[in-house]
Amino acid sequence: MPQPSRLLVNTGPGKGKSSAAFGVMGRAWARGWTVGVVQFVKSEKWQVGERKLADHLGIDWHTLGDGFTWESTDLDETEAKGRHAWDVAAGMVSAGGYDLVILDEVTYIMKYGWVPVDAVVDVLRDRPQRTNVIVTGRYAPDEVIAIADTVTEMVKVKHAFDQDIKARKGIEY
Amino acid sequence: MPQPSRLLVNTGPGKGKSSAAFGVMGRAWARGWTVGVVQFVKSEKWQVGERKLADHLGIDWHTLGDGFTWESTDLDETEAKGRHAWDVAAGMVSAGGYDLVILDEVTYIMKYGWVPVDAVVDVLRDRPQRTNVIVTGRYAPDEVIAIADTVTEMVKVKHAFDQDIKARKGIEY
Repeated sequence: MPQPSRLLVNTGPGKGKSSAAFGVMGRAWARGWTVGVVQFVKSEKWQVGERKLADHLGIDWHTLGDGFTWESTDLDETEAKGRHAWDVAAGMVSAGGYDLVILDEVTYIMKYGWVPVDAVVDVLRDRPQRTNVIVTGRYAPDEVIAIADTVTEMVKVKHAFDQDIKARKGIEY
Repeated sequence: MPQPSRLLVNTGPGKGKSSAAFGVMGRAWARGWTVGVVQFVKSEKWQVGERKLADHLGIDWHTLGDGFTWESTDLDETEAKGRHAWDVAAGMVSAGGYDLVILDEVTYIMKYGWVPVDAVVDVLRDRPQRTNVIVTGRYAPDEVIAIADTVTEMVKVKHAFDQDIKARKGIEY
């Protein structure tokens, strides 16, 4: 019998939550897995390097967020996009066609109350045996941590942004 | 004037230190950077997914470690390989031809005393303006943290291995 699928959570305030997920994306690709990504917060305006890599590798990528909420000028629209992103993500996780689904920054839709934590937990807990899931973002709820196999908190010891160094292409995005 | 290069450190006992570095490797590739990797601990016996991805992307990769020390049957040879790996890595960092050099699990050569911390710090601190460096591994020495721009400690909240779940291809390697 194959191993059951894993649920990994990368949370905490430090750098590396999404980077680590995209590192695993590369490993999964190397193993011939079918991989899907939903980005919940970064909007299409961010021409991120990880997207370019995913396109090159033939990975199914959905950027469905509306940028960071503090940049939003229409919070209703931001919330609607967040809910829509979750609907897409829940379908990808439940359908059984993926070996790995990365839900990048999905925690924010729970933090802001756009989608109930229980609804997210139901989908993650009932995922197909084939489908591993990685959840990233600050403030992972206890209920998600409870059903996860591996949970890492990225703790910021020091961050370049604190020293007025700008986000850098190739490193942060 | 271009931004000075960055030194990032991913340390701590949690999962994600190397994964995050390989996520940044993908971003750097997407930006057209010249990237080099030295793996200090994993030996060639580990046919790791990240290596396969790096080969696919044309990234310069050196696996120079001797496996985990607790698997070593000849510690003198393991130490000699560790020192050699550092010589290669130091050359790559100092030469100025790379935009990013990943020193995966380099911390162990300092932890075991194979290379003095000061020697590593000198090379990292005097790196060319072009060359960003990512250091991964547990037990990053204070002297390395002191000269780094961004330091993340990966804290283990929960790890599948604690529950007798085996390392899984596509996820952990």
